[in-house]
Amino acid sequence: MQQRHHVLKLATRGKGLYEFTREVLDWVAGSGIRSGLLTLFVRHTSASLLVQENADPTVQADLERFLSRLVPDGDPIFTHRMEGPDDMSAHARAALTQVHLSIPLVDGNLALGTWQGIFLFEHRVDPMQRQVALHLLGE
Amino acid sequence: MQQRHHVLKLATRGKGLYEFTREVLDWVAGSGIRSGLLTLFVRHTSASLLVQENADPTVQADLERFLSRLVPDGDPIFTHRMEGPDDMSAHARAALTQVHLSIPLVDGNLALGTWQGIFLFEHRVDPMQRQVALHLLGE
Amino acid sequence: MQQRHHVLKLATRGKGLYEFTREVLDWVAGSGIRSGLLTLFVRHTSASLLVQENADPTVQADLERFLSRLVPDGDPIFTHRMEGPDDMSAHARAALTQVHLSIPLVDGNLALGTWQGIFLFEHRVDPMQRQVALHLLGE
Repeated sequence: MQQRHHVLKLATRGKGLYEFTREVLDWVAGSGIRSGLLTLFVRHTSASLLVQENADPTVQADLERFLSRLVPDGDPIFTHRMEGPDDMSAHARAALTQVHLSIPLVDGNLALGTWQGIFLFEHRVDPMQRQVALHLLGE
Repeated sequence: MQQRHHVLKLATRGKGLYEFTREVLDWVAGSGIRSGLLTLFVRHTSASLLVQENADPTVQADLERFLSRLVPDGDPIFTHRMEGPDDMSAHARAALTQVHLSIPLVDGNLALGTWQGIFLFEHRVDPMQRQVALHLLGE
Repeated sequence: MQQRHHVLKLATRGKGLYEFTREVLDWVAGSGIRSGLLTLFVRHTSASLLVQENADPTVQADLERFLSRLVPDGDPIFTHRMEGPDDMSAHARAALTQVHLSIPLVDGNLALGTWQGIFLFEHRVDPMQRQVALHLLGE
């Protein structure tokens, strides 16, 4: 049993979903591990992770629109506004989605279904540099 | 340290929670591993996983009703309707719940609390065949 | 590769976020494991786990206020009221947040970002005793 660590750096340009399945698959393929457990952990509180459909891009646009309505920027209920109207709404959106993902690795393939992609969900308006810690344990 | 992989197949008949704690416990019991980490990963984007109370079935009905109101089928905000009015709402419901679960295994028992059961949360109206990838790592 | 199990006990005094990053770090530091994967699992269905900003306490107050509005106590949609108006809303709030967290451990440090703390999210009004199962796998 062995393990590998890595940090992926992802640049975002406003709210929405950014797929990075390819970057994850490439790192896993180069790890030499073919069976085990992959964990992804986003090192921020205003961005999150999501496994979602990557076939039709309207799914991603609809998810963003849905979250924007559910957690409105500048909601008067929020007192934390240090970095602007999208500051606290970003934290709440992150709280409703995932800070981490764990995906089994079987015979060299992640257990993702046919339509599943791995996304970073950006909740801030301004361009950001995001880090996702990767951990792979297996053999 | 050893690991085991498995895929559970579950049939659903409409939106709602389907408990499969028993199927998980049976597979773990037959694995020969008594201490470690169990991970479950649902291989779909319109169904999800949940650990919730399994004592009173009204909890499950209330959760379904709450999610149906929070994410209405056919919401005009959604443009992705390829498979009907419950298509995009299913993706949004899945995004708000869990695609994976990890539960420690201690002395042959999962660390579930007294009232905790493991559920598949189906978000589509039509009958579906769902797959949950299981991974157990331990000794 | 080795593993450790532990159960943290946390007392809560009403709804809201309770940080316990320090307790987790102390246990990890005493484990003798410096590289691996930490998993936390809350053994209840009316409390949950969250990684969120621990710098400004208004973030925590705003998150509580947001969840209280999104899932109102005593909502007439709920039929499960055995333990009062905050019973079923607690289950729904737990379903929308996390029952478990997994965080990589790298060179003796959890992969948490600068502003990330680990919180128990209490969803019940009355004082409660909560248990979080910890599992650490690594070397």
